Formats: sequence, structure tokens, C-alpha cells
Amino acid sequence: MTHAKPSIAVLGGTGHEGAGLAARWARAGYRVVIGSRDAARAAEAAGELARASGGDVTGASNAEAAAAGEIVVIAVPYAAQRALAREVRSEIEGKILIDVTVPLMPPKVARVQLPEGGSAVEALQRELGEGVRVVSAFQNVAAHQLSTLDEPVNCDVLVAGDDVDARETVCQLAKAIGITAWHAGPLANSAAAEALTSVLIAINKRYKVANGAGIRITGIPGQP
Amino acid sequence: MTHAKPSIAVLGGTGHEGAGLAARWARAGYRVVIGSRDAARAAEAAGELARASGGDVTGASNAEAAAAGEIVVIAVPYAAQRALAREVRSEIEGKILIDVTVPLMPPKVARVQLPEGGSAVEALQRELGEGVRVVSAFQNVAAHQLSTLDEPVNCDVLVAGDDVDARETVCQLAKAIGITAWHAGPLANSAAAEALTSVLIAINKRYKVANGAGIRITGIPGQP
Repeated sequence: MTHAKPSIAVLGGTGHEGAGLAARWARAGYRVVIGSRDAARAAEAAGELARASGGDVTGASNAEAAAAGEIVVIAVPYAAQRALAREVRSEIEGKILIDVTVPLMPPKVARVQLPEGGSAVEALQRELGEGVRVVSAFQNVAAHQLSTLDEPVNCDVLVAGDDVDARETVCQLAKAIGITAWHAGPLANSAAAEALTSVLIAINKRYKVANGAGIRITGIPGQP
Repeated sequence: MTHAKPSIAVLGGTGHEGAGLAARWARAGYRVVIGSRDAARAAEAAGELARASGGDVTGASNAEAAAAGEIVVIAVPYAAQRALAREVRSEIEGKILIDVTVPLMPPKVARVQLPEGGSAVEALQRELGEGVRVVSAFQNVAAHQLSTLDEPVNCDVLVAGDDVDARETVCQLAKAIGITAWHAGPLANSAAAEALTSVLIAINKRYKVANGAGIRITGIPGQP
């Protein structure tokens, strides 16, 4: 029996951003497996997400989740990103890997501090090699926006990647959960989204935004 | 006789982006002097902008314009930014310098290529030293949006700078020409706006946007 919709593994799916994406995709009818360093914790969180979303969410270790998902998402803190990618490298060969990582450097998370050499995701692609179809997306969507499942998300998504077909798949996955997504160019262009998150955090502080500021792209013919 | 509104010098004011800003400020009642390497060309362009805006626009060499403006704007191509700043260094001591520069690296202008060490504007601030109040703004507003004087601008402006009072002044200068502007954090956060321009160029190509895509910040209480 085949499914028309790909299964999605969300590594770091017990965190706020990962859990929010997992719940939205589960509600939209995707089979979701969330991964965590602690498989028992993943299973417990998966139960909660399944109840909240009314969808199909299971939990596993990160490596098991990566093996199970046809599409794999990394949604962990920056400090954990590269080690996790190395850990699951053999499980993600040939797959689309959606990297949600923002290179925040606590405590100054409202200050842009991009890594030397460009964006965090380019360093990830170099680490993994050409056999993984790395796409950058979702950096600017506040976790709070994702977690309120009955509310629309107030933020467009910039989708950057060197593999245009993979990018289109990720745009469709965003649209499937009601988020407007844009082809934002090559993987290098992820620097804009990665940097923008610190700007949005600065705006949240300055303007007392409780639910998370976001962005919209304007000026597209036929769009409101 | 004093004016309540500061005079504004736009260096590179014969270019599309600079001319658009100059015309908008002139129409809003600011005295504007545009600068160019060629003072005669600046004077000619100033005449056209004065007619188009119905405002007060004069032209001069870049150094003369920088000396005349209480607030100085740099709106030249990236390759010319640093040399121009050095040229007018003594004329801008103590002033607010609004840097509009985007570090585009032709021919790949739709690819983010931030300079090593962060943003172009941070390198400019290092070049000029602490005596100049450098603020980054307007990188994401398409020149076409500015030049159509009777139409609203479809793009918010991210204003980054280490001097919060200078930042606020620049926000007010944007609002004076009908543009929504946001305190975007320290000067380092200009990296987001600088990178975003290449993303918007990529979006313009992919989605056939003739008039220039832009951004809006969403989620701010009390904003639409």
C-alpha cells in the first residue's frame, strides 16, 4: 500500500518549532514521525501531538525517525545541528533534508551573527555532501504561530536550495499547512532568512509582540 | 532662518534608488541636494527631480552635497561605497549617514554574497570610525516603487544601527514619505536587509514581478 503523501520525519520534534511543524503536517494528513535523542520522550510527545492534531504522529530516536521519513526535517538548536546531521547521515542519503536551523548565538539572539563563510545551511550541505538534497525553510515562522493549530500562520516562508525540484516539494509542504512559500533562490540565499530571524526577535522585543512577528512578500501579481 | 526639517544630501542621487528617495523627500517638503561625481550631471538631474516632485532639489558634487546636508544618504553601487565614504569623511563628521548599499556582486545579483565579516555597512562604519552615526535602511525598496511618486510604496523598511536616536530619526524620515519603518536592531542586523535584496531579485525573476517585490512585517499589535 502506497501513500500519495510522503512521510515526514521531524528531528528535534520535541522542541517548540519542530512540534509545531509536526502537528500541522499531521493535521493535514501526513504521517509524521518525530525524533529525539530520547526515544521514550519522543514517543510521549508524539502521543500529545497526535491528540492535538487528530493525525498520525509517532516517536522514535533521531536515527530511527530519519530512517523512517521519506522527507527529513532538522529542527534543533544551532549548536546541535551538525552533530545530528553526521549521526543520521546514512539514513538520509538521497532524501530531501529540510533545515530549519537559525544560527542564533545566545545570549545575543536579537543580533545577527551569521557563521563565517555564509549561512549555517551551506555549512551543513558541505558537511553532508551532494548526496543529500538540502533545502532551507521555515526559519522565520515563530513556534507560537505553528502551535495555535486553528489559527492561520502570519508569516511567509522563504525556501532556498540548489535543487529546484526539492525546493518545489518544500514549497508544497508549506502550502499544505496553509503557509505561503516562495522560491528564494540558491542555498546561499538562506542567509537572508537566517539573519531575518534575529531581526524579528529584535522587533518582538522593541514592539512587544507576544505571538511572534513575521514577514510577507509583497508585490507579486495576483497576490493580495 | 531655521528649518524644522533637516536638509538631506543624497550622494549617488543621479542613480535610480537615490533619485527616487530624493524625489519623495522633496515632495514631502525636505530640502534635498543630490550629489554625483559630476556636479553638472547632478544639477541637471536635480532640475528634473524638482519638476517631478514640485519640491526643492539642487545638485552638486558629492563632497559639496555631503557638506550641505544635515543628514547624508549614500546610494551608490557597492563597488563605489567605501571610496565615496572616504572622499566625504570630513564633511560627514557627527552627522547621521544613511547607507542604502546592497553588497550585490554582478553578474550573480540574485545570489546572496555578503562580505566576509558580516554586512557591508559594518565595514563602512569601521572605515569611518565612531564619529559618524551610520544607519542602514531602504535596501529592500525597489527603485521603481520610489519613482512612481503618486503610488504608495509596497515595502517596509528595516532600519539597523547602533545609535538608537539616529535610528529613530531615520524611521521618521521613512514615515515622512509614507513608508513603514521598523527598528531592526544593531548595525550588524543590516545583514538581513542586505541579503534580502538578492532574495527579492530572485523572486522578481521567478515570479515575473515587474514593479519589484517587497516585504512587510506582520504580527505587530495594532497594525493591519
